[in-house]
Amino acid sequence: MQLTKQTLNQRTDHVYDVLVVGGGAAGLSAGIYLQRYLLSTLIIDKGKARSFWMQELHNYLGLPPETPGRAVLKQGKDHYLSLEGDYLNAYVEEVIDEGETFAVKVRIGRNHPTYEVFHTRYLIAASGIIDHLPQLGDMKNVFDYAGHNLHVCLICDGYEMRNQRVGVFGSSEGSLQVAFPLGWFTPHITLFTNGAFAVGDDLRDRFAAAGYTLNEQPIHQFLGENHQMSGVELADGSMVDLDAGLISMGSKYHADYLQGIDLDYKGGNLVTDTMNRTSHPRIFAVGDLKVGMNQVVIAAADGANAATQIWRDIRRTEGTRRVPVAA
Amino acid sequence: MQLTKQTLNQRTDHVYDVLVVGGGAAGLSAGIYLQRYLLSTLIIDKGKARSFWMQELHNYLGLPPETPGRAVLKQGKDHYLSLEGDYLNAYVEEVIDEGETFAVKVRIGRNHPTYEVFHTRYLIAASGIIDHLPQLGDMKNVFDYAGHNLHVCLICDGYEMRNQRVGVFGSSEGSLQVAFPLGWFTPHITLFTNGAFAVGDDLRDRFAAAGYTLNEQPIHQFLGENHQMSGVELADGSMVDLDAGLISMGSKYHADYLQGIDLDYKGGNLVTDTMNRTSHPRIFAVGDLKVGMNQVVIAAADGANAATQIWRDIRRTEGTRRVPVAA
Repeated sequence: MQLTKQTLNQRTDHVYDVLVVGGGAAGLSAGIYLQRYLLSTLIIDKGKARSFWMQELHNYLGLPPETPGRAVLKQGKDHYLSLEGDYLNAYVEEVIDEGETFAVKVRIGRNHPTYEVFHTRYLIAASGIIDHLPQLGDMKNVFDYAGHNLHVCLICDGYEMRNQRVGVFGSSEGSLQVAFPLGWFTPHITLFTNGAFAVGDDLRDRFAAAGYTLNEQPIHQFLGENHQMSGVELADGSMVDLDAGLISMGSKYHADYLQGIDLDYKGGNLVTDTMNRTSHPRIFAVGDLKVGMNQVVIAAADGANAATQIWRDIRRTEGTRRVPVAA
Repeated sequence: MQLTKQTLNQRTDHVYDVLVVGGGAAGLSAGIYLQRYLLSTLIIDKGKARSFWMQELHNYLGLPPETPGRAVLKQGKDHYLSLEGDYLNAYVEEVIDEGETFAVKVRIGRNHPTYEVFHTRYLIAASGIIDHLPQLGDMKNVFDYAGHNLHVCLICDGYEMRNQRVGVFGSSEGSLQVAFPLGWFTPHITLFTNGAFAVGDDLRDRFAAAGYTLNEQPIHQFLGENHQMSGVELADGSMVDLDAGLISMGSKYHADYLQGIDLDYKGGNLVTDTMNRTSHPRIFAVGDLKVGMNQVVIAAADGANAATQIWRDIRRTEGTRRVPVAA
């Protein structure tokens, strides 16, 4: 059930089998599998997964290519709730390992928040990442286009940009190197530093050799209408026409709540085994937070793997569970 | 495009980037990703993937839980063809490694077959498995219920069988051990040997201790109507009432065409790395044929991984591909 401030006190004494942090594709898929394994599950979601912002999933098997990311999340949440899983809109602040269980501290609500603690045997970290965006004076101008033709994922949207005039918006020298795989799809590439960092001679030479243009001016705003970005206006008032953009500025990893637990990371990503178990035997990581490709269909598969391995663990301990789990 | 006997001679001189053997969930997902990477792809399908027989996918994120497997395959094939991938209904007989490319020998048509050879740089083995079914005198009687409430996948359908009277149909002592994880979902289990093999004292004792019934009579037929199996009629005319069945008789692995190539297997499954590459650098395996769980969403993710790694391989060699691939 959807938990609210009014109903969640029915659940705070319960020890869940699995608490899933994050209600994106990975967390919802895990929740569907877990409830079908008759495990008691709570998904805690802070809202607006990365895929929520995707206007069209072009590569998810079984769905028409114009399906919005939020439609997958809506269907997944309905599916999960139909299996009687618990779902709470809240923010997970801290996870404390108590040995057999975890205590999970959450903040509920924004303006007048309340605080609760849930208990669970297993934890699935499905809280994902969110892309850093260009910081312009008017951020609404960025949000108007991000997820439409101002892309954040080359693997997802390289095809959409084929033979287009594409602007790459980076945050460092390294981040601009995405231009080379983008060059598979289009030769018409302009690299924007937004005046925020220097580009060394070596990379400058490689861009020139590939025929890419380097633009080091500060950006004033994106141009366009109806969520279709058509170019960039620079601080000096000049314009650059574009058909699409690719933001390559890194990501924020939503994993602060795990700081108190010793886990293996590679960069910001959690390292897992093939069944998505982290270096902690009762913590699994799925979706964009773990090492691997950031794709919705892979996140969904991660959820299936993690849920199945947790079921195997619990089943091997308990043997059977013939009556539904009581709250 | 859908290739036919009339049109395929346009393609036999072409060297595909990737030939995918099998048009199930894994192969179609790979094909969608490959075409979006601007790689020229041919899917060869012999028809009727394992998921084709599934009347309801209950656990695929983004689709209503009553979606038939064949609807996912239909949507996936339409999606793939909309990206201008080639698709041929045929049977792959043999793959020969020519060093830089593979020659793939196919048989087209059943009654008056013709034979063709295609060439490809990479191969994706997505040909899957098919479950062995009980061999009764009237096989139509088996097909009437298989994929409805005569299940083949505990992970998929354990939930559907919760607290039901379930018959387990095995082909060996080992295959009957699926009763123990099934016992997580229901205590009402009858094990059928169909009179085909002996059960040792040790296992017999474990079944008795768990409260399971062992039935060693030959089976005459399944009972039921409208694709809902309601029990079993034994050879001696007696009946056993059931709510559902679980077939556990192993699988046929569709990989004969790879016999001439030295690959690592574990049981009948191909061993792969995390990006689904087999022990051969230009052969990938996805879906049920590889080691791992047999789930539609995992097969779809496999396709994404394999396609992406092949793109990376080719891109690192070629650097760019700015014009669409000509046939």
